[in-house]
This record gives sequence, structure tokens and C-alpha cells, in this order.
Amino acid sequence: MTYFRRTIEEMSGYEPGEQPDSEANVIKLNTNENPYPPSPQALKVMQEMNGEWLRRYPDSMAEPFRQAASQALGIPQDWILVGNGSDDLLTMIVRACAEPGRAVVYPTPTYVLYRTLAQIQDAEPREIPYLEDYQLPLDELIAAKGAVTFIASPNSPSGTAVPGEMLDQLAMQLSGVLVIDEAYVDFAEENALDLVQKYDNVIVLRTLSKGYSLAGLRVGFAIANPTLLKGLIKVKDSYNVDAIACRVGAAAIADQAYKIANADKVKRSRAKVAQDLESLGFKVLPSQANFLLVQPQHIEAESFYQNLKRRGILVRYFKQPRLEDKLRITVGTPEQNEVLISTLIELYQ
Amino acid sequence: MTYFRRTIEEMSGYEPGEQPDSEANVIKLNTNENPYPPSPQALKVMQEMNGEWLRRYPDSMAEPFRQAASQALGIPQDWILVGNGSDDLLTMIVRACAEPGRAVVYPTPTYVLYRTLAQIQDAEPREIPYLEDYQLPLDELIAAKGAVTFIASPNSPSGTAVPGEMLDQLAMQLSGVLVIDEAYVDFAEENALDLVQKYDNVIVLRTLSKGYSLAGLRVGFAIANPTLLKGLIKVKDSYNVDAIACRVGAAAIADQAYKIANADKVKRSRAKVAQDLESLGFKVLPSQANFLLVQPQHIEAESFYQNLKRRGILVRYFKQPRLEDKLRITVGTPEQNEVLISTLIELYQ
Repeated sequence: MTYFRRTIEEMSGYEPGEQPDSEANVIKLNTNENPYPPSPQALKVMQEMNGEWLRRYPDSMAEPFRQAASQALGIPQDWILVGNGSDDLLTMIVRACAEPGRAVVYPTPTYVLYRTLAQIQDAEPREIPYLEDYQLPLDELIAAKGAVTFIASPNSPSGTAVPGEMLDQLAMQLSGVLVIDEAYVDFAEENALDLVQKYDNVIVLRTLSKGYSLAGLRVGFAIANPTLLKGLIKVKDSYNVDAIACRVGAAAIADQAYKIANADKVKRSRAKVAQDLESLGFKVLPSQANFLLVQPQHIEAESFYQNLKRRGILVRYFKQPRLEDKLRITVGTPEQNEVLISTLIELYQ
Repeated sequence: MTYFRRTIEEMSGYEPGEQPDSEANVIKLNTNENPYPPSPQALKVMQEMNGEWLRRYPDSMAEPFRQAASQALGIPQDWILVGNGSDDLLTMIVRACAEPGRAVVYPTPTYVLYRTLAQIQDAEPREIPYLEDYQLPLDELIAAKGAVTFIASPNSPSGTAVPGEMLDQLAMQLSGVLVIDEAYVDFAEENALDLVQKYDNVIVLRTLSKGYSLAGLRVGFAIANPTLLKGLIKVKDSYNVDAIACRVGAAAIADQAYKIANADKVKRSRAKVAQDLESLGFKVLPSQANFLLVQPQHIEAESFYQNLKRRGILVRYFKQPRLEDKLRITVGTPEQNEVLISTLIELYQ
């Protein structure tokens, strides 16, 4: 006897990365958080919030955030839709577009939530492996005729980005919606915002969780033409973004200079960690994100993960095809990265 | 050409109540917010939050809130599931249980979101009118064999509550899930928590939006046996409750004395406003919630709504069968209620 749909009964849910108690003395390089604190402007707004903001319902469209994002990024306000993290927007997109008999398409390995969301919706998840060196399998993606096609760029866990001209090709040739999930774009060399203007089937997703150091606040946003957003709004929870997230997020996105300065620091650290790991014999995939996908030589990745965990360093290990010999390591502060490298030396040299 | 499912294309979204700018000088009696500020304990926690809480992902199950709710209400922790407002939990329930060919059942008039959620899921919304004086149409509800049956108790917009023995009957005889939506229970005489222990198909929903004056924070929770919650967790966004909402909400629910004192004030005001309106010739439905459903005599409800709005008082008017001759008025502070009554006298006597 079950009260659930058969699909739900048979599926396993998405498994988020480990979150130790914040008190725990752990170097946390497993869920791609930004190592630097959020903008002081954002923290100031949080301190200034009072009970009246909490007593009332928030703005249903999170207008204060939309205004700030519009100004910061030079996008008209009605081309922006705000979500309770970009996961909320991914859910809206799948609920609004996908259904039994129409596929949800994405190259793998990538963010596992795409599959989970397709399954929940009883739509077929069509997984197309990335080509060698994470080149985009363009023809196969087009042939799969998805109701929705997801491209994470930069991708997790590979850290690789898809060149703009490839995304342009894809957008032009797809008959369904193309979602370019730019969660990690603040650490990358290019972005796909111009495609939103060029093609009416493109949605770009952004989040404050990575570049803006606000994973705990849950603010993401979609950029797309207003007609496309209108369909998503129909399946949006009325008050999906709370009053604090809306205002604190607005202050954070307005402070572009702070975000860029932190991203620059992370990018410099990324280059340093990559070099150090390579000199220790790791194979390191070139990354446009705030993490590195690395392959240890002569030692199993899973035992590496376990040994680091025992020494108080959390990294991410995926027991999945093409990943089971690799680790995904978030770029930390210079101090954290040094502890990582010296621990690796102690453990294995 | 559309990128959306036909269902989405054809439906209109849920329309939330008007939210004027908080700066606007308006007496807002239209969306059932609590007129009193949130607990000082909750505000203190908000002031103490720092950047480290925001930088990291929140706890995926909102454990700090679960712990506090468990202690405050005497329910085991694993019988509690936290949502981004109770709307988030309603969404989870419908996505996990309803599908084409199986109905979502509820007595009407009630919370319009039940219908919207059924439509999005391509499940049939089976609406069964309340009997006279908002008696529950028990036999028809049972006969409808819903995958999910929603009972809001106290109900909005009627303010009426369903007696415990009726809910017990319903839970026993339904083959699907029974959701008792207790958004307004903090202003009521009884609650249905004991049914969760007695029947494995019962989910009770609570929110901090009304009794705890935290509509802007978005925290709701479900109480049900862990097996039932397990299915809902599969369709939950991983980080659906943000770090601030989790901690501030925990402090609020721990402060039961404050909530009860405010609810008592609201209940006293409710009795006074009901009496005043009756003496002005309104028909007033007995209410167990923080609002009154009232019927003006000799004057159209819609013109009442418009005239009050022009005078800076927002109440809720529903252009729907059985409601188009009535207004739903939130109970405000004694001062706000006096302005309401004196404005009514000015307008119509």
C-alpha cells in the first residue's frame, strides 16, 4: 500500500553534498561555496531588516531584487524572474515544459538534479555523454528533440565551459527550450546573456550561491524574454522568495565590484592549486569554475576522499561512471588550499 | 508556437492578494497577516546572523527548526518536514501523490491554490461545495476517492472550522491522503494533531505566516508519520528553507507564550469587530480564524470593497460563486479595527 505515484515510489531523491555542523572544525571543499564572506552591503541590509518586513507577505515577484539585478546587469526588469535558489527555477522550467512522451535532454556527467526533476515529471531523461575533453555532443543533443535541454556552463563537476558559438548553434537548431545554467559563470571567461536577446527559446540561469557567497540565502534568477517567463510564473509558488532574501540579495547584486574582486582572488587560487596538484602528479581538468575536477595517479580516488575526510578536509567524490576515478575539489582560501596540498603531500609522498 | 505544455498554456496562474508598498499609508486587512510584530526572540536571532550563515548552504532538512518545533509541540523530529511556506508543502504533496486520472478533492469555497496545483499536475480538481453553514460534505468527499483530499480548517475565506470527529471520520474512510491545512489554527479552539498519530494517511500543515507574524519569512511545516514524509522529501528542493528562515523560525516557534498572547488579543478583537459589524447590519459568519467573512445588507459587496480601498482600507473581495456578495476582512489592531468601523459608518449610515 502506498499513497504515492508509482514514479515517486520507485525513485530515490537527489542527495545533496555533506553539510557538517558549522561548529565543526572542517575545511569544506565539497559543495563549491565561495570561501569569502558576502558583500558588506548585503550584511548591512540584513542588520537593518525589522519585524515589519517579516510580518507582511513579501513581494510576489521580488521586485526590489529584480530592480537591482536589472541595473547591475543591464537587463530590462521584466526579463528577470527570481527563484528560491536556481533549483526553484529548474523545477519551474521542468514543470511548465516537460511531460510524459517528451524528453529532458542534457550532456553528462552534469548536475544530477536535471535527472531527478525529469523523473518527478514522468518525462524521459535523455542523457548524452560529453565527447572527449568535455566537447559538446551537439548533433546528438539536437536530434534528441527535448522539450527542455539543459547545459550547465561552466559545467559541474567538470568545470569546463561550452564556447559561445556552440551554444548559439544549439539555440538556433533546438525546437524546445534551451536552459543555460550559469551557476558558476562569475568565475568564467564568457557568458551567454546575448543569446537570450537573440533566441526566444533561451533561458539563462544565475545564482547568488557561488559568485556572491550567498548559498545560505537561496536566491537565483532566470533571464529570458517575458513571454517565456510568463509560463514559468504560472507554476511559481506565489511567495517563493522571502522578504529578507529579496532585500539582502538586491544589495549583494548591486555590489558588482566586491563580487568581481572575490572572483579574481578565487581564479588566482584556482591556478595555483591546479599547478600544485599537477606537480604532485594529479591530472587536472582546465576549470572555468570555483572548483577543479582532478584525477589522482596510482591511488584510488575513493580512498583519497576517505583519507582527506579523516584529516578534516571534505572534498566531493561521485561514485558514477566517468567520475569514480576523480575528485571534485572546491577552491578555498589560500590558507585552506595550502592545508589541502600539504595534507596530500603528507599522505602520499 | 509555444514551449509550454498545453495545460500550462491554457491555465491562468494563482492570483495573490494585493501588496501595497510598505511605505503606503494603508490599513491592510486583505491577506490575513497578523497585526502584531514577530517574537522579539526571533528578531534577536535575525540581528545575530552573520555572513558565515549566508555563505554556506543551509541545512537541507532545516534541522534547527525541526528541533525547535519538536520541543514546542511535543512531536518527534522525524514527524516534521519544513517548507518554504506551507505553499511549498502543498506543492510537494500534489507532485508526490496526484496524477492524471486521480482526483484532487476539496470542499469549496476554499484556498484557490488547491485547484491551481491540481491543474499544474494534470490531475482532476474535484470541487465539492460545502453544505449550508459550511458543514462538511462528508459522503461526497469520501465518494470522490481523491489521491489527495484537502481540508482547510479553519477554512479560508469562511473562517469556519471542521469539528474533530468529522475529520476523524474522513481520515478513516478515505483511501488516499488527507491533508488538514491548519494555517489558521492558532486562532481556533481545536486542532487535528492527534489524527496524525491515529491514521497513517493524515498530514497536518502549519505555517508561521499567521499566528507567528512571519508571512515575510516563508516557513511552513508538515506533520505526518515518517513514511509519508519520506515520499514528500523526494520531490523537495534540496535547500528549500534558507539559513535565516530556519534559525529565525526556530526562535519564533520556541516562543509559544508570545504567540498565544497575540492570538488571544486577535481573538478578543475578532469578537468586538464581529459585534460592531452585526450592529451595523452585516451578516457575520462565526470565525475561528484571524478574519471574518461578512455580508453587507442592501449594498453590493464589490462597491463596498472599492469604497474602502479609496479610503485607504484594503479588504479582500472574491468575484466567485457564493462569495460575490461578501467581503473577507482580516482582524487588525484595535486601532485599525476602529478606523474600519468608523469608515463604514461614515460611508453608509
